[in-house]
Amino acid sequence: MAAEEWYHEFVDKSHTPSKDDIICHFYYDAGRGISTEECVGRVASESSVGTWTTLSKLPDRLQRLKGIGFEYDDHHIKVSYPKELWEPGNMPQLLSGVAGNIFGMKAVKHLRLLDMSLPPWFLRSFKGPQFGIKGIRDVFRVKKRPLTATVPKPKLGYSSKEHAEIGYDVWLGGVDLIKDDENLTSQGFNKFKDRITRMAKLRDKAEKKTGERKGALLNITAETKEMEKRAAMLADLGWEYAMVDVVTVGPAAVQTVRDVCEEHGLAIHAHRAMHAMFTKDLRHGMAMPALVKIMRTIGVDNIHVGTVIGKLESPKEEVEANIKQCRDKKIEAGGWLLDQDWGGTKPVWPVPSGGLHPGLVPEIVEMFGPDMIIQAGGGVLGHPDGATAGGHALRGAIDAALEGVTLKEAAKTDKVLAKAVEKWGKTRPK
Amino acid sequence: MAAEEWYHEFVDKSHTPSKDDIICHFYYDAGRGISTEECVGRVASESSVGTWTTLSKLPDRLQRLKGIGFEYDDHHIKVSYPKELWEPGNMPQLLSGVAGNIFGMKAVKHLRLLDMSLPPWFLRSFKGPQFGIKGIRDVFRVKKRPLTATVPKPKLGYSSKEHAEIGYDVWLGGVDLIKDDENLTSQGFNKFKDRITRMAKLRDKAEKKTGERKGALLNITAETKEMEKRAAMLADLGWEYAMVDVVTVGPAAVQTVRDVCEEHGLAIHAHRAMHAMFTKDLRHGMAMPALVKIMRTIGVDNIHVGTVIGKLESPKEEVEANIKQCRDKKIEAGGWLLDQDWGGTKPVWPVPSGGLHPGLVPEIVEMFGPDMIIQAGGGVLGHPDGATAGGHALRGAIDAALEGVTLKEAAKTDKVLAKAVEKWGKTRPK
Repeated sequence: MAAEEWYHEFVDKSHTPSKDDIICHFYYDAGRGISTEECVGRVASESSVGTWTTLSKLPDRLQRLKGIGFEYDDHHIKVSYPKELWEPGNMPQLLSGVAGNIFGMKAVKHLRLLDMSLPPWFLRSFKGPQFGIKGIRDVFRVKKRPLTATVPKPKLGYSSKEHAEIGYDVWLGGVDLIKDDENLTSQGFNKFKDRITRMAKLRDKAEKKTGERKGALLNITAETKEMEKRAAMLADLGWEYAMVDVVTVGPAAVQTVRDVCEEHGLAIHAHRAMHAMFTKDLRHGMAMPALVKIMRTIGVDNIHVGTVIGKLESPKEEVEANIKQCRDKKIEAGGWLLDQDWGGTKPVWPVPSGGLHPGLVPEIVEMFGPDMIIQAGGGVLGHPDGATAGGHALRGAIDAALEGVTLKEAAKTDKVLAKAVEKWGKTRPK
Repeated sequence: MAAEEWYHEFVDKSHTPSKDDIICHFYYDAGRGISTEECVGRVASESSVGTWTTLSKLPDRLQRLKGIGFEYDDHHIKVSYPKELWEPGNMPQLLSGVAGNIFGMKAVKHLRLLDMSLPPWFLRSFKGPQFGIKGIRDVFRVKKRPLTATVPKPKLGYSSKEHAEIGYDVWLGGVDLIKDDENLTSQGFNKFKDRITRMAKLRDKAEKKTGERKGALLNITAETKEMEKRAAMLADLGWEYAMVDVVTVGPAAVQTVRDVCEEHGLAIHAHRAMHAMFTKDLRHGMAMPALVKIMRTIGVDNIHVGTVIGKLESPKEEVEANIKQCRDKKIEAGGWLLDQDWGGTKPVWPVPSGGLHPGLVPEIVEMFGPDMIIQAGGGVLGHPDGATAGGHALRGAIDAALEGVTLKEAAKTDKVLAKAVEKWGKTRPK
């Protein structure tokens, strides 16, 4: 075999993966002057054991550690990776292999990780969601309807006192959860401890007044040990959730937060800020459903998944695949997705958000069904009659959709909902 | 003002940023039907305080928290962000703002964060590199030449015993540092503790034999608390460095590792596996020099920066900007980069790597100068006479380049170097 053709060793259409293998599905465009087979071989090699030149000393055991491109055409590759390549319970290490150097190789012009099929031994080496959909329903005593969340808008600028007061108003309107925005952590104008303390007082008041359990998604995003401290503060004040910007803190810290939140009995709300840096281009990076899979495996309880119709880019195929990755117990291969048996890993709440308002609720309910946390910020707080009215209109729109009543019909007897529908109609924000 | 034109409030060509502002430089392509000004305003808004609809309750203080697009054309924007928006010492929070939702907005087709100008108060809220270039030179007693590193290839498959023996051979050849590959952490065939223990013994032997200080870049990449344990093990065995895959663990964990490594007197080697998911497309994501800036600010001591001529994609403009971000004390705006005064933040070693061999050393030395850690894996271990010869050839090529002697000339009196030159010539790997 010529030295330049070593990559053939990483390509084998007759290869049958073992049930313990991790399988990855990639989209690719080959680099200039690179054949399909060379491209497949280089991807399988660089993400497993390979190097670019012939070597003087090759251990025999190398053969059983190779990634093998076993199914491919000019744009899609499936690669199988043996169990021995991976460290159980180490998500960064998996990514350093299947999402690492291969993305920078000159041999591929574009490369996109579409999905990974994770075997039972790998899933079991992570904790998975602590609460999941059923656990959170039990905590909030909400049996069937979607949960609702609102984020004070503008994103930043409110003092902790103002922030808490807005939360109170929205809770009274029937919203379950008040969410911090992704870039609100602990700034001078709204310190974390102040915010969660003031909010806890008004939460107790709102719970008394409404008889409903009221919660918040409070953003602990920071250096890991600081996040630990903030999680402890949340638990002390009786909060149910910690929110984390899972991409900007990174997978190692999400794993740590998962452990810490178990100690405190806190659920995890995953915000995906920064994902679009690598999920937006449909030919390169990582598909959003693969990120959802990573986060469900580590064990968040909620994750933002897009809306198709809101202000953030999220194609229908992507959002549908995200929802499957969040909730299904068994996924059958199709489109971007590979076969996946989630075994004992609990389902996660998908969170549609970004430019939503009551007028878009019917479409969202049709797309997601009841197991979702529907999040509207401006679409609640921008209600002409204020925040409580905005919350009421959101809940009214959801109830109507669940009962199969049109918004137009529902607005006839609900003047507050009518005003929201009048303001926004079915506007899809840019 | 029409409600749809709120974005004008985030655009002001007459605005002069304050010296405490964080300034960001973006490349963009506007989304369908979006004007330049609307695009600029939406980017500045969504990355600071904005929302997509009119609101019933706006605090007056909002005005001074706005991001302002103050300089722009059809493809470049500079946005100033006031100090109050940011939490000192919280890198994930900065990214959740300037690298967050804006990348997913439908209003931009492509968006790329090219650079951030970080003011003194922000830099001082992080530790920065503990050792930097001078500190590491002192530890290794190497005054002027580049440091050298080799990674056992194939990437994975060697037992800890074999791995250590290869390291020993390479150390004897004159190489300073043996590096783990990015996906080698603690797998069954080569456990972390075994590897670093066996290597420590052979390191002591190699130091005795050569009279030189010998080190290693040992990969602690894992969940944060596991990384803490691994860092402590490294310190116990007298190692100088911990290696971290900084993108796959994420910024929060890198900050934590920086703190932990200070306790143990360990330097940090930053591997950038996964960066190309968001740095490769020149129109979208984050430019590599911006990632270098983030990591220098947090405080790694080395970082991989590409080679222009090796197997991984790295355009010349990018690599040159990376080198500046690593080493310069003051940077003047030009190309992708903004003005940056690094103040007391120490310079970082740029690490060229990926498909290098002795035949490419002259070009690398010309591009980088002596303050670099030149890393060759296959280009050392693939030497026809084995690993020690490979190390010798790499050092020989460096010495020749520093003295202005051509490789052809140097190979006349160095038969070991001659064999490397004969095998690889000036091959640029694909």
